[in-house]
Amino acid sequence: MGFFDGMRVLVTGGAGFVGSHLVDGLLDAGAIVTVYDNVSTGDARFLEGALCDVNCDLITGDLLSGEFLDEALHGKDMVFHWMANADVRHSAERPSHVLDMNLHATMVVLNYMRRQSVRRIAFASTGSVYGDVQLVPTPERAPMPIQNTIYGASKVASEALISAYAAQFDMEADIFRFAPMLGERYWHGHIFDFVKKLSANPETIEVLGDGSERKYSVYVKDAIHGVLLGVEFGLDRVGVFNICGDYSYSINESVNWVARQLHVQPKVTHTKQSWIGDNPNMYLDCSKLKALGWRPETSAQRAVFNTVTYLLQNPYLLERES
Amino acid sequence: MGFFDGMRVLVTGGAGFVGSHLVDGLLDAGAIVTVYDNVSTGDARFLEGALCDVNCDLITGDLLSGEFLDEALHGKDMVFHWMANADVRHSAERPSHVLDMNLHATMVVLNYMRRQSVRRIAFASTGSVYGDVQLVPTPERAPMPIQNTIYGASKVASEALISAYAAQFDMEADIFRFAPMLGERYWHGHIFDFVKKLSANPETIEVLGDGSERKYSVYVKDAIHGVLLGVEFGLDRVGVFNICGDYSYSINESVNWVARQLHVQPKVTHTKQSWIGDNPNMYLDCSKLKALGWRPETSAQRAVFNTVTYLLQNPYLLERES
Repeated sequence: MGFFDGMRVLVTGGAGFVGSHLVDGLLDAGAIVTVYDNVSTGDARFLEGALCDVNCDLITGDLLSGEFLDEALHGKDMVFHWMANADVRHSAERPSHVLDMNLHATMVVLNYMRRQSVRRIAFASTGSVYGDVQLVPTPERAPMPIQNTIYGASKVASEALISAYAAQFDMEADIFRFAPMLGERYWHGHIFDFVKKLSANPETIEVLGDGSERKYSVYVKDAIHGVLLGVEFGLDRVGVFNICGDYSYSINESVNWVARQLHVQPKVTHTKQSWIGDNPNMYLDCSKLKALGWRPETSAQRAVFNTVTYLLQNPYLLERES
Repeated sequence: MGFFDGMRVLVTGGAGFVGSHLVDGLLDAGAIVTVYDNVSTGDARFLEGALCDVNCDLITGDLLSGEFLDEALHGKDMVFHWMANADVRHSAERPSHVLDMNLHATMVVLNYMRRQSVRRIAFASTGSVYGDVQLVPTPERAPMPIQNTIYGASKVASEALISAYAAQFDMEADIFRFAPMLGERYWHGHIFDFVKKLSANPETIEVLGDGSERKYSVYVKDAIHGVLLGVEFGLDRVGVFNICGDYSYSINESVNWVARQLHVQPKVTHTKQSWIGDNPNMYLDCSKLKALGWRPETSAQRAVFNTVTYLLQNPYLLERES
């Protein structure tokens, strides 16, 4: 019997891009999954497959108010806290909103977990916690960074609370710091923007920066595989794992990939400025997770291809407000 | 004219043990100081001297509700955010309270600073942010720690928010990570406990741990000198500075110092257990601040002596609930 067989888990944010893949992965591994989501930025359609499974149910609630959270947590073995505002680029426009959705929500989850004696949590963090990166590729024990985005700050603060609760209240935690993810159900970020812009205007496209910056990302299904491995085989009370692909691509390359798939030949123009806190060189050292057997199997080009294919098959996503 | 001459500053928590020394130091340096405090854990008597100065006034308000905060910040050049729940040992007993007092209060201050266009902040952090210390003496750029106390988590989370606000909203910040402080007006922590216990029962005293652990601390007036130096001469948008003495002492030594000063000869007994998250080896590398000319001038024995003398002269402090 596998590690997750029959495990009763709660997935907050399970209707989101990444959360819904996590739900699929947990169900495949034999877990009994309750999804908790307010289905506002998430999308119930992402759970269409999962909810056909008798082992999956959905609670629609407002996490910040604690609505239905006692019953959602009652009898659970573990929480995967995936609910978040994941938009690093725009996090400075509404700092209080981002802090509520990320940091305050994490406090709420931790306090309800204590009430319901749920002692294990996995948490979706981000490579953005490395802030003003000092070391590339960046290991989990990188020099203490200075935060430069509200999003990164909200996540590193959440990590701190989770770790302290684990130490003080006899809990276990696994924290996953993700590179930007690509794949099916992706609906914001630069590849999404390219598809949206080129669908509207195939003649020309403007991209941030000079286009030569190289990006690392990770394919969402590879990332979820890493999460399950880390939770099953990690040995620390608080385990921290980077999850990042080994493949980099330039912005120019990715625009070309998207254009080719859309059968368009746009003129590409560049803006000089990027956004404050952008880290074009985010490349996370994943030695720790690789030592547990993980590999990022999927190339960046394939991940972009799958991303674009899904968007073309589900064009309603291009109409959503991101 | 000195750097602080005529500078209009707000000191939150300025009626506290450390905050009141900061107020004294700022007034000495020529600043015009508004103290903001709810005077609950702080003590108006700590400000008796300061409030005789025409350049000092006190606003009594509840920071979490934002009460009087707009008027307190209006026209200020800088904020020293010193208001906190500083009790690391008991922070797990009331985690939500500690997070409100430390993390949530910091968010409130930052948001009101934006409203009032106050662009500079200094923040009282702690060596407890180094959590499960990997490197001793610990430099500011130590490997990213795992937090193990609610107090440390609340402070590292606050640091993260301050840094992110600085990057995103054109602010400057100086963050000071203090070793445990000693000195006049100190009224909780182990030296306080020793004085209180030996005053009640001079025959015997029980101490946590085996008594051989060595502690580093810093004399509060030396620490304030370091804060003023760091603010004046630090060059980074977000400066982070450790502040710690170079002198260590064992718990047994400090009990003996206190006993001698109290003219008692107690039998010392030991408990095997300490508290979760205690870091008996906290020793912070202060090379960065020393490069600006700082030195911890006062020996640990002298700092303990001054601490005990003040408590003996102000015995009402021994009666306070800590």
